[in-house]
Amino acid sequence: MGLFKSERVVYRPVKDVNLGHDSSEFYLQANVKAPRMTGVLVKIFTWLLESRIFGALLLYILKGNNLIHKLITNAELEESPLYVPSHHFDDQKEQEVKRLDSALTPQDRVQLAIECLPASSEKALNGTKPSFCRWTIMDYFRAYSSGEITPLMVAERLIAAVDESSKPPLQMGFFINYNADDILKQANESTLRHQKGEPISVLDGVPVAIKDEIDCLPYPTTGGTKWLHKERPCIDDACCVKRLRLCGAILVGKTNMHELGAGTSGINPHYGATRNPYDTNRIAGGSSSGSAAVVSAGLCPIALGVDGGGSVRMPAALCGVVGLKPTFGRVPHFGVLPLNWTVGMVGILAGTVEDAMIAYAAISGEIPSHEPSSMLTKINLPLLPLTKSISDIKLAKYGKWFDDCSDDVRICCSNALSKLQGHYGWKTLDVTIPEIEAMRLAHYLTIGSECSTSLDSFGEKHFAELGWDARVAINIYGAFSSKEYIKAQKMRNRQFQFHKKILAEADVIVSPTTGVTAYPIQDDALKTGELDYVNGAALVRYSISGNFLGLPAVTVAVGYDKLGLPIGLQFIGRPWAEATLIHLAFAMQAICLSEYKKPKIFYDMLRKG
Amino acid sequence: MGLFKSERVVYRPVKDVNLGHDSSEFYLQANVKAPRMTGVLVKIFTWLLESRIFGALLLYILKGNNLIHKLITNAELEESPLYVPSHHFDDQKEQEVKRLDSALTPQDRVQLAIECLPASSEKALNGTKPSFCRWTIMDYFRAYSSGEITPLMVAERLIAAVDESSKPPLQMGFFINYNADDILKQANESTLRHQKGEPISVLDGVPVAIKDEIDCLPYPTTGGTKWLHKERPCIDDACCVKRLRLCGAILVGKTNMHELGAGTSGINPHYGATRNPYDTNRIAGGSSSGSAAVVSAGLCPIALGVDGGGSVRMPAALCGVVGLKPTFGRVPHFGVLPLNWTVGMVGILAGTVEDAMIAYAAISGEIPSHEPSSMLTKINLPLLPLTKSISDIKLAKYGKWFDDCSDDVRICCSNALSKLQGHYGWKTLDVTIPEIEAMRLAHYLTIGSECSTSLDSFGEKHFAELGWDARVAINIYGAFSSKEYIKAQKMRNRQFQFHKKILAEADVIVSPTTGVTAYPIQDDALKTGELDYVNGAALVRYSISGNFLGLPAVTVAVGYDKLGLPIGLQFIGRPWAEATLIHLAFAMQAICLSEYKKPKIFYDMLRKG
Repeated sequence: MGLFKSERVVYRPVKDVNLGHDSSEFYLQANVKAPRMTGVLVKIFTWLLESRIFGALLLYILKGNNLIHKLITNAELEESPLYVPSHHFDDQKEQEVKRLDSALTPQDRVQLAIECLPASSEKALNGTKPSFCRWTIMDYFRAYSSGEITPLMVAERLIAAVDESSKPPLQMGFFINYNADDILKQANESTLRHQKGEPISVLDGVPVAIKDEIDCLPYPTTGGTKWLHKERPCIDDACCVKRLRLCGAILVGKTNMHELGAGTSGINPHYGATRNPYDTNRIAGGSSSGSAAVVSAGLCPIALGVDGGGSVRMPAALCGVVGLKPTFGRVPHFGVLPLNWTVGMVGILAGTVEDAMIAYAAISGEIPSHEPSSMLTKINLPLLPLTKSISDIKLAKYGKWFDDCSDDVRICCSNALSKLQGHYGWKTLDVTIPEIEAMRLAHYLTIGSECSTSLDSFGEKHFAELGWDARVAINIYGAFSSKEYIKAQKMRNRQFQFHKKILAEADVIVSPTTGVTAYPIQDDALKTGELDYVNGAALVRYSISGNFLGLPAVTVAVGYDKLGLPIGLQFIGRPWAEATLIHLAFAMQAICLSEYKKPKIFYDMLRKG
Repeated sequence: MGLFKSERVVYRPVKDVNLGHDSSEFYLQANVKAPRMTGVLVKIFTWLLESRIFGALLLYILKGNNLIHKLITNAELEESPLYVPSHHFDDQKEQEVKRLDSALTPQDRVQLAIECLPASSEKALNGTKPSFCRWTIMDYFRAYSSGEITPLMVAERLIAAVDESSKPPLQMGFFINYNADDILKQANESTLRHQKGEPISVLDGVPVAIKDEIDCLPYPTTGGTKWLHKERPCIDDACCVKRLRLCGAILVGKTNMHELGAGTSGINPHYGATRNPYDTNRIAGGSSSGSAAVVSAGLCPIALGVDGGGSVRMPAALCGVVGLKPTFGRVPHFGVLPLNWTVGMVGILAGTVEDAMIAYAAISGEIPSHEPSSMLTKINLPLLPLTKSISDIKLAKYGKWFDDCSDDVRICCSNALSKLQGHYGWKTLDVTIPEIEAMRLAHYLTIGSECSTSLDSFGEKHFAELGWDARVAINIYGAFSSKEYIKAQKMRNRQFQFHKKILAEADVIVSPTTGVTAYPIQDDALKTGELDYVNGAALVRYSISGNFLGLPAVTVAVGYDKLGLPIGLQFIGRPWAEATLIHLAFAMQAICLSEYKKPKIFYDMLRKG
């Protein structure tokens, strides 16, 4: 059934595909055929899409032009479908790690994480003093412990900073909701604890921001919309938020996001575009735009996001901060908007790798009563000092893919990789990851179908209240057949096997985090949002395996482009091997720390006086 | 989207649903709105369905009329999707069992099964002599061991019987393919082994038939079609066949089946309708029609089928034999046509429970190298004597559902249940299983979508070569959206939780196997097949949880209707608890054995002289 039926790829069996550097597998560059649209064009496009006759035709043409028919719908592949990337827990052979029982309290896990931190002298290589470094959780803890600064002072500064940054001329678009009274109340309680010398943990009094896709009292969970919270009231903290609150963290509000997570620019027509602290005329990336931007701007050392298609790592890279997406299933999903079921995971945005590790220790581990026995994973944390190599790390690199990005990104990431090899003696394995573009389409089809199904339960009647770009996305999301969905899961199985083979040889896969740096926010996009699938595809290029295959991944800032915009390098790890990722991230950060640049918008929350 | 949008069920959370006898949950009887069609009507219907405009409209109306829009497409349900019923292996607390390591050879496992068999005096209650009993594997073994009969003699009788039964006037439609030379060759080898006193196992020389959905050399695997084997050549035995061959069984050919398993009548337009040995004017049931019929007619003590929606249990019940569908994942699926991925399982058709147990021991257990560690299940077999009760068995019964069948079936099954309670003192728990009709639709949507996707890879170009009824089925199968598929998996999660709760209280769920007995084959159906969704729904009524939730289930003949047609009673068990099922099946058989009737068509393979 199909005009384009003749365009049919026959995939060869996984066992016959060469994953080595000498592979004949073809690297298909994403050739996204969709013009950038904003303003009235978006509206007309949406109307056409929503009309019964034209809509069906338009969707058919869009799918055809973007190779969905050829690579997915009509493809022949023998693998059975794999729906949920649930990795059976094989006891990870990670080396030099501290193993934390996931039944420990969050406070205890945080304390054990502290014991893994490198001594400050080891943070930067050769003891060079960094020119710029964001305050860390330990900086907060030391300042509070000395009595120099109190959580209340930080809360007041934060409220003033958020007030200022939300108004003209800045209009940073950091938050969707924050409540000064609630923040001050938490800060007061924390201040009292510190004054009594009884802080709950090193996170006591530390400001933490939460993406508005995660339940956090007393706020509604809008998902970046104007209506979702009315259909689905927030009645409790999400599990990850509850754990941070147990550690004494101050929850400072709900950060801005791309509406429904259905885009990567972070331009939200209802709550404003989140602006990049390194250049306020540019996007912060998305969909966890606000969480990345507030950490970048120094308002919080850590924030939570959700990563269903790079949504933590992309804005982290664009805003020059650390982004950690754990293995699928590592952080309980309870209390996160169910916009999808098989690709999304709570992730961490942090100013430093140290803080990402502490937050990871706090929020990880399944809820004991909910999990089947095989999922009762212990959490590994890397035992430092980290400047010394742990055995011989092998980094898998697929050259054609690695290089499929802007010149600045490529040069910067290649340099960082060379330094890493030079300093630590780690090896690079040249590999081939086949069918990356087919994987991107299969992931799109999956997250789209799941999101469409999920929203259906929340009430289609609100779709007209969506921004135009989200409305287009939701229309496309709803246009897939069960056959296309199942074939996408067959593709998932193939990629699962490819990645398993590669990660049996290498410890991690290394790549840039995004194909481009932050691009300008155009005025005409502010109200309608924008459809820019070309930039979108470049942003998301390196994110997919983390979500579609549930692999853990981390991004660290490794430099800047000619305009001073941050560039991130990504490590994609073996299932459950977050400790190795954190270890590599520390090593990477140590190399780059001395060159870190301060963003244009930066609030120094621990300044004296 | 949707004219019928207002018809939207909002399902309440699982935890709020009462599963007790006093539940307010409504039992929705299947109200299948589709007229029975054969002949030219089917052809016109197919043409309409395949036309672009009318087809879409017709499918929309069909979905609406059959409550798919209301119960699935537009339904609101909060559960996340569950795609594959893969039960983590909790060490089953089955009592009085022998545990077999799944790494044992099939021969060893068969030997251990023999040690669990009841002494012949215990087979029937009170030692009453059964009026009719099919020859068992042990009967074959004893006959061969004594030298009275040889495998070669059995093979010759079998070939003669198949020849006779395939021609007029009988035209039983047992086999799609069988090869006399190949059978004689195997029989010769087995005869030699027995003559040397070195049989491989008790299965050595025992004839076994294989459904033509399972690879078995030297035959093509047609799936009941005229073309599938051309697209997918059979190059090896399926894993389950290989294991039987290792035990010395004689593989006697490929049994007839409903085309592509896409129906329950077993009327195949290419290879003839399989006729019921109890009444040759009636269906054998399907889709494993030939496998049930050959066992019923005495040609083989066991045969293999595949059960994706009751396809082993339904024909077993209609033909008066035992049907065992193990837990999803219990028998390796390697070498079975991939017509679906999440509902189908190899199952066993056997003349007696003893033989079902022996075959189960032979073919069960994952392929060690393929399985994740948590799946390395041991196989339990019940330790007999079985006439004594094992602790206090509890049978869950949902009255409204149990009684939703023809009068004869209801009376017969209720009587059997009473006898079971009377003889063994086992208890019945009155429970409510909510949303059974929604589960049937969700299962239909799932197996349909998977089958459509699978066939797409084998070549849509052959669809015109399908029989008319299969062609209609495939057209409907391909008409679902990804949203519908995902919602069906959400329904699966709900039902998973319902059944988990019920099976935490009860050992098994008890029900009739089918809602009706074998119905007549109408002449006009022979060439076009027939569309009879009303009878189809009645046949499949009690089968769904076994497939959609992957639960093990067994059917045993418990009596006959007024016309002398067999009636089966079904037990649905806990995951991996096949031993309990087999135990209950033995107990049931012991009660009914004295009343068993010989079918009209019966070949006595071990007759003397």
